[in-house]
Amino acid sequence: MFVELYRGAVLESRHRVHVAVVDSSGRLVAQAGDPDYRTFWRSAAKPFQAWPLVEDGVVERFGLTRQDLALACASHSSEPGQVALVREFLQRIGCSERDLMCGPHRPLSEAVAKDYETRGMRLTAVYSNCSGKHTGMLALAKHHGWPTEFYARIEHPVQQRCLDSVSRWTDLSKEQIGVATDGCGVACFALALRNMALAWARLGSGEWGVVPHGADRREPLPTPHSPILEAMLHHPELIAGEGRPCTELMRAHPGRVVTKVGAEGVYSALLLRERLGVALKIEDGHSLASALAIATVLAELGLKPQPERLLGRPLTNSRGEVVGEMRVSGGLER
Amino acid sequence: MFVELYRGAVLESRHRVHVAVVDSSGRLVAQAGDPDYRTFWRSAAKPFQAWPLVEDGVVERFGLTRQDLALACASHSSEPGQVALVREFLQRIGCSERDLMCGPHRPLSEAVAKDYETRGMRLTAVYSNCSGKHTGMLALAKHHGWPTEFYARIEHPVQQRCLDSVSRWTDLSKEQIGVATDGCGVACFALALRNMALAWARLGSGEWGVVPHGADRREPLPTPHSPILEAMLHHPELIAGEGRPCTELMRAHPGRVVTKVGAEGVYSALLLRERLGVALKIEDGHSLASALAIATVLAELGLKPQPERLLGRPLTNSRGEVVGEMRVSGGLER
Repeated sequence: MFVELYRGAVLESRHRVHVAVVDSSGRLVAQAGDPDYRTFWRSAAKPFQAWPLVEDGVVERFGLTRQDLALACASHSSEPGQVALVREFLQRIGCSERDLMCGPHRPLSEAVAKDYETRGMRLTAVYSNCSGKHTGMLALAKHHGWPTEFYARIEHPVQQRCLDSVSRWTDLSKEQIGVATDGCGVACFALALRNMALAWARLGSGEWGVVPHGADRREPLPTPHSPILEAMLHHPELIAGEGRPCTELMRAHPGRVVTKVGAEGVYSALLLRERLGVALKIEDGHSLASALAIATVLAELGLKPQPERLLGRPLTNSRGEVVGEMRVSGGLER
Repeated sequence: MFVELYRGAVLESRHRVHVAVVDSSGRLVAQAGDPDYRTFWRSAAKPFQAWPLVEDGVVERFGLTRQDLALACASHSSEPGQVALVREFLQRIGCSERDLMCGPHRPLSEAVAKDYETRGMRLTAVYSNCSGKHTGMLALAKHHGWPTEFYARIEHPVQQRCLDSVSRWTDLSKEQIGVATDGCGVACFALALRNMALAWARLGSGEWGVVPHGADRREPLPTPHSPILEAMLHHPELIAGEGRPCTELMRAHPGRVVTKVGAEGVYSALLLRERLGVALKIEDGHSLASALAIATVLAELGLKPQPERLLGRPLTNSRGEVVGEMRVSGGLER
């Protein structure tokens, strides 16, 4: 499977796509490229980094809302409303923006970025797309009585707890997971696409991986949906933002899908009715290519119709002329 | 050959590199990936689009300078001095900025872009990195008495003359060359890397391809260097700009190399002493990867030392921490 850029009638560039589609038992249902391709999960791991908030009782301790949990799983657009909610979340756990260790960056939404530029706004840590995740990590530290200072460091118990969660959801030992520093400064995790997809499939199956690694995990928890999954399903507008693919993909089929982008061409998704987890990586890390690929893969797995604008993108030049198109070629193998 | 992005000790993304290294007789001297990979030449074709200025007598007609010719071959940075020179070039041929058909875009130099943003400058056509090429095309139209209106359209005699030049330099018939619309609105050309490299090798050999396609081209012209080559060699500061790879690569080894970037991960180069033409394409179009790849390929072909900053790029995150590196792996096959 490739995402291809055509200029006129001629192929100009192409992006290789690796995909794993897995059910909650770990069976590989469909694939493209190398389903065992190993790369960093980046922000598509956020639901599993947020999971300790549920499992360790942090939700009850601080009275976290569904919106708080959604933002802990989000790569938000730095929209004013999203930032206001993160500020409330910080207040709820007795922290302030000064406690956040995420660095500032240009908002992921081009419209938001331009608006803030025009207004000459100075963007602080709370505007980071990861500020909800970081606030969740601060909440976890406070709950356990761990220091909130340097919570982003890999050796800090917060990051070790996240690694532990990722390990259990993905059926990998901690030693099998590569660890490095993410764009926002916390630990990020490298593993095979197949294992990423497994975790996402389990998110919808009630098999929440809350038993230690290696033990029997066939015992589903009593409720059909995890609070993390419910939060994401109820708040597609917080998971990304207006006009961004995750939000649009989820809005196109309410309640049927959760999608989560990661940096460097990563996507993960859960198809609820089909009970399938999906993980994909654009080998070269191209972000737009990953969005077109996940929409195409989800359509092929039965989530139809997908809005045309999610499946292809016209190529325009500096004169505003349409001079080509980017689109997926090839499909899944079963 | 790959350009690899490592995050910590783990590979995160990678970019496939296709390379052809050819001598002026067309012999493939070295390669990586597929030397027959076909893609758009983009701005690395500019010397051959500028060639009619020399061949048709436009240089003499308007008294074009070396700087004019360099700018006709350039993807300049929109630096104030570069823009001033393009304005002089326009004046010399009796045209004005209003005649330019290139669309505006953010300057290719991040420093220049930020400076202009801070000063709230409105960027017009003359700030396009292609404004020198467009001015050369206007000069060609005026010289031949062709209309200057719509000179960018593929059916206009200016573009057909450029296609003719590209055809002869690359030893391909016009029918073998794919044509589409470039980022700036003029025709751009799709062909195999091997043929791009051949044209660049010939640029340094005195075999200028000025005989019609299919005829005997073994007769070198009397001077060792073409005016186009001399212009590029004398003005590396105009070919790109301060801090950009083409300018830095040429400054690191004055008189020994000409390099020219093209959009979507394309590079071409001429090694003068070795009399070799080089063409490469990053399969996915990644721009930084193409710059690291051309520096590495040129070093492998004997152009050493290359400044370390041209061979690898640290990966930093939003907190300013160095969290990885981008670097070339693998080498040329001979």
